[in-house]
Amino acid sequence: MNISIILAAGEGTRMKSKIPKVLHKICGKPILEYVINASKNANIEKNYVVVGHGGEKVKEKFKDSHILFKTQPIGDEYPYGTGYAVMQAIDHIDDNSNVIILYGDTPLIRDKTIKRLVDYHDKNDYDGTILTAYLEDPAGYGRVIRDDEGYILKIVEHKDATEEELKIKEINSGIYCFNGRQLKYALSKIDNDNAQGEYYITDVIKILKEEGCKVGAYVIEDSREIHGVNSRVQLAFCEKVMRSRINKRYMENGVTIINPENTYIEPSATIGKDSIIYPGTIIVGKTIIGEDCIIGENCRIENSKIGNKVEIYSSNISDSIVDDECMIGPYAHLRPNSHLGRNIKIGNFVEVKNSTIGDNSKAGHLAYIGDADVGKNVNVGCGVVFVNYDGRSKFRSLVEDNVFIGSNSNLVAPVAVREWAYIAAGSTITEEVEEGNLSIARARQVNRDGWVEEKGYKDNK
Amino acid sequence: MNISIILAAGEGTRMKSKIPKVLHKICGKPILEYVINASKNANIEKNYVVVGHGGEKVKEKFKDSHILFKTQPIGDEYPYGTGYAVMQAIDHIDDNSNVIILYGDTPLIRDKTIKRLVDYHDKNDYDGTILTAYLEDPAGYGRVIRDDEGYILKIVEHKDATEEELKIKEINSGIYCFNGRQLKYALSKIDNDNAQGEYYITDVIKILKEEGCKVGAYVIEDSREIHGVNSRVQLAFCEKVMRSRINKRYMENGVTIINPENTYIEPSATIGKDSIIYPGTIIVGKTIIGEDCIIGENCRIENSKIGNKVEIYSSNISDSIVDDECMIGPYAHLRPNSHLGRNIKIGNFVEVKNSTIGDNSKAGHLAYIGDADVGKNVNVGCGVVFVNYDGRSKFRSLVEDNVFIGSNSNLVAPVAVREWAYIAAGSTITEEVEEGNLSIARARQVNRDGWVEEKGYKDNK
Amino acid sequence: MNISIILAAGEGTRMKSKIPKVLHKICGKPILEYVINASKNANIEKNYVVVGHGGEKVKEKFKDSHILFKTQPIGDEYPYGTGYAVMQAIDHIDDNSNVIILYGDTPLIRDKTIKRLVDYHDKNDYDGTILTAYLEDPAGYGRVIRDDEGYILKIVEHKDATEEELKIKEINSGIYCFNGRQLKYALSKIDNDNAQGEYYITDVIKILKEEGCKVGAYVIEDSREIHGVNSRVQLAFCEKVMRSRINKRYMENGVTIINPENTYIEPSATIGKDSIIYPGTIIVGKTIIGEDCIIGENCRIENSKIGNKVEIYSSNISDSIVDDECMIGPYAHLRPNSHLGRNIKIGNFVEVKNSTIGDNSKAGHLAYIGDADVGKNVNVGCGVVFVNYDGRSKFRSLVEDNVFIGSNSNLVAPVAVREWAYIAAGSTITEEVEEGNLSIARARQVNRDGWVEEKGYKDNK
Repeated sequence: MNISIILAAGEGTRMKSKIPKVLHKICGKPILEYVINASKNANIEKNYVVVGHGGEKVKEKFKDSHILFKTQPIGDEYPYGTGYAVMQAIDHIDDNSNVIILYGDTPLIRDKTIKRLVDYHDKNDYDGTILTAYLEDPAGYGRVIRDDEGYILKIVEHKDATEEELKIKEINSGIYCFNGRQLKYALSKIDNDNAQGEYYITDVIKILKEEGCKVGAYVIEDSREIHGVNSRVQLAFCEKVMRSRINKRYMENGVTIINPENTYIEPSATIGKDSIIYPGTIIVGKTIIGEDCIIGENCRIENSKIGNKVEIYSSNISDSIVDDECMIGPYAHLRPNSHLGRNIKIGNFVEVKNSTIGDNSKAGHLAYIGDADVGKNVNVGCGVVFVNYDGRSKFRSLVEDNVFIGSNSNLVAPVAVREWAYIAAGSTITEEVEEGNLSIARARQVNRDGWVEEKGYKDNK
Repeated sequence: MNISIILAAGEGTRMKSKIPKVLHKICGKPILEYVINASKNANIEKNYVVVGHGGEKVKEKFKDSHILFKTQPIGDEYPYGTGYAVMQAIDHIDDNSNVIILYGDTPLIRDKTIKRLVDYHDKNDYDGTILTAYLEDPAGYGRVIRDDEGYILKIVEHKDATEEELKIKEINSGIYCFNGRQLKYALSKIDNDNAQGEYYITDVIKILKEEGCKVGAYVIEDSREIHGVNSRVQLAFCEKVMRSRINKRYMENGVTIINPENTYIEPSATIGKDSIIYPGTIIVGKTIIGEDCIIGENCRIENSKIGNKVEIYSSNISDSIVDDECMIGPYAHLRPNSHLGRNIKIGNFVEVKNSTIGDNSKAGHLAYIGDADVGKNVNVGCGVVFVNYDGRSKFRSLVEDNVFIGSNSNLVAPVAVREWAYIAAGSTITEEVEEGNLSIARARQVNRDGWVEEKGYKDNK
Repeated sequence: MNISIILAAGEGTRMKSKIPKVLHKICGKPILEYVINASKNANIEKNYVVVGHGGEKVKEKFKDSHILFKTQPIGDEYPYGTGYAVMQAIDHIDDNSNVIILYGDTPLIRDKTIKRLVDYHDKNDYDGTILTAYLEDPAGYGRVIRDDEGYILKIVEHKDATEEELKIKEINSGIYCFNGRQLKYALSKIDNDNAQGEYYITDVIKILKEEGCKVGAYVIEDSREIHGVNSRVQLAFCEKVMRSRINKRYMENGVTIINPENTYIEPSATIGKDSIIYPGTIIVGKTIIGEDCIIGENCRIENSKIGNKVEIYSSNISDSIVDDECMIGPYAHLRPNSHLGRNIKIGNFVEVKNSTIGDNSKAGHLAYIGDADVGKNVNVGCGVVFVNYDGRSKFRSLVEDNVFIGSNSNLVAPVAVREWAYIAAGSTITEEVEEGNLSIARARQVNRDGWVEEKGYKDNK
């Protein structure tokens, strides 16, 4: 059996935050979630997360994640350090299991890396395997000291390293795979008899070596995977790498992304072939976008389903459904629970909320369609307002097929406008309009001769 | 004479697309167009494009490009390979011509590189000249093997290379300049007696060498030019490089671009000195922008002519003309066939379509001016709608100079509002308003005492 | 005493601009301002700026900066060169002062670098100290020639350098610290007897060496600091580096910036902990943003004060105050002198200008609130216009607490709407509405049977 122990108890002081470090997000998800997912996808059967600072918040956030939590006691009366953190899960370690030590603040670690580490560990029948990396600038990291044949001799911390050792570019990532029995033994031996007074998991390596155990190292291919998040600068770096990975995947699946460095798609979205995503666009949650769409610049689309051949420019859509061949924007806003049929045009400065709109209808400009059921072939004029709120309650409107609603009209809900009805511009409609009727509610035009001259407006200009 | 044969028959499977690979776009133009233009600008007199997969679409797209097309037959019964592609144009190769082999999927190739290749070929009186490049990571590419004096011995494909040859960083770009007569001879000799069963143009080099011909190599300065597009990841890379090139040119001509990595200007635009372009802006087609403009963030400007000292923020303009000193946006939309005179202010949430507006007029907020001729010094109030559509037809409005149109008014077209007229707020105007008249069309205000208490609204809050 | 002489007389021909080079901006401020600030922050007591081309504009711009200006005469009758520029300030150099030569077009120079240069100069008791840098590609720069013990022998200009000297990667930044007396002596000795006929400040080094003075060199840590701006491409580069520096500082202070490469915050802003800034956002001037805010994508916020827990999406705010827990946007616009109380919602396509709005009020859609005082718990309906302009003058409106303003209504200022009043949708209000009254100003709805059929609209669709 494979068990992971994911260390997530750190405070993250350099984040300068009220939020526990591992709950800070990249690409829309807490960084810890990436580590948990990588571990699960690497076929680790049991995953323990050791929480500490802000532990309750972390547990709350991941309460549905089938994760086992262990709480590291925090305070002056308790020891500190990674070794002490791992000890919290010691009762759950089977002798014959592999125990993989991971970190909640390294969101870039890939499942395949964990898998390879475990495979390498198993294949070589090691007691402990270190995940190492080659860094151009290894300053600050513990160096991996190997013997002439490549076997691991020891890890030397940066501050303890000799001039010669400092030149070594292979570093310890802090990620390990241990044999359960050996780990438990070593944990019982490590102490905090050091300057910081902390228990270090690194000491396990030393102890295993002293016991004559076999310790190996698996070198990671892409050293960025072990990049930890200790500050918001590092958070932004990990976001950038993750964004690049996610966008690469979409591109490989047939999506054109004009500028992947400035396009923000969460990994939970689905996008069809030959759709094009312009820069500045943010796609969030379980959004599904069809084929041959143009998602123009600076859109935000959240948890929505977009059909095929839809064009959307500079608009904001959330929790809505948009059928094929619609044209939306620029500067439109579909708020939750809107459903547009096929071939609908929603133009500039139009808001739709909690409404259905039938095929081929149009609301081209400056309108608000709220809490309404609108039929097919309806023309919603410019400046039209579906008045859904009387100051106390919200009501729905019904507009049947083929209706024409003149500009700057109000439909005061609850109200029904039957098929083929025609509402004159500037009317406030409060009562049902029967099929095929013209409804008008406006004053007659009166012109006052010479008024502008009288009022002296001309002098003033 | 110089002849180019541009190979554009490939399917581009990794693009995962219904569109032929060479029609995918970077910076607004199909990638093949860049290659054709580079070839033409390098003074290549005749340009043959060999199409295959999706050939009809390619031919349709470039039907006005003065390009000669040859169609490579595609199918199980036909051979494959670059050599076979070049053979399609064999009848058009003069003995005494230079034949330059180019690729429709390498949009970054520069005219000056092609020119230098041909000049180098001519100057040295070579029979064949390979365009080569030095790559940091040459993996996958054919290596260029030279003798001690630097002459070309052969090209070795990556998979056939010895350990020693794999260390060579000079690679074959696949771009060549051949003597016409020698190329024809070599093409008659190449076979498809290889694992893939394809004819390779690379074999021409081997045959020329066997015949004792002089084969040279011209090393490209910027190896990014030979970057091919086989996937959308590569498409995005080429877009990035091309964007950088285009923006550099605008900057060199005196335009400030705040963030050239996030500014999208097509090469067909013209921008005057001391204009400043903010990030996220997209400038498309034959747009002309004057001097001293501020084009604020997140604008899209298409095929429009913008004067001097114009300021535009977060707005969308297409197929329109904007004269000097106008102020537009944020969140304004000029749709096609709009012409703004000098010193006009179009403010937030205002749409203009198919209209002319005279000098010094204003539409500051939430208005739609559609199908109208608006004079000078006109004030279009907030929420004003030019009602141009009656459900059946579109009509035009005329608003003469010095008119004041009160807020939330409708002008129902066809209608004329004469000079100095004044329209009261909230009026729907359906008949002509004479010069200097006040026109009003609204109901008198009625107040009902105690209504709110009666209705119980207060209890509810 | 420390004196700086900042050379800012150059024309900057390659900028192709009507604006003096040192007034071009990065991150919102003229590049010269960065140099002046670095000098002042390095505890340089007296700062002389030598202006020339466009000198009057430069002096005007910095007239409140406590800077001393010297004007270098420009014209065919005057000599050119950095040496001649420095001579303009010669009368102000005390014998016992340190004179630091800086450049108005190197905005990336840091105060701590200047401080270290001066400290190094003082500590070693040098007569002249050169600020040098190691460059990967030193082409074009003067090389620093040291003797075996590391002492400076001379500076060799690129064009005069031997093959051996060209390999040297340590270059002269042109920034120096001199002893005042020695500098004055050397300036009296330099001549313009060279190809360009210019006086070069570099010659001072040669003269000091000839006089047996001690000349040292301080090597800069980050060579990007000496990057000069001679073209708009270089301007964009400096903007990018400065943007990265500024955003790093905000991140270190506890602000999450999703994509620091595409977020534009001026250094004069203040942002609280745990606020998140989405990409494409521009924050200008003395803006103060509280803690736990979400500043969504593509916002522009200028000179405004934003409270805690405020959310703003795709909106534009200038010279305004927004109290805690407000929700703004997407597509809202707060124009100058707006003050929103707590927990206010300003939704899509809403503009507020020169108005105060009380706690818990809402204007959710398509409204214009201009020149108004709006109370608490007020509901401003969709399409409502505060009509503040009669074509001649602007007036204010007063809306007291708990008022409901129905959709598409106009409030024609000056007008007061008292507490708990209720305005029916579609009304144009011109007279005061008393407390608790319903006010209505609209025509009765009239329906005409069969009108649509008669008019033939059905046939037409």
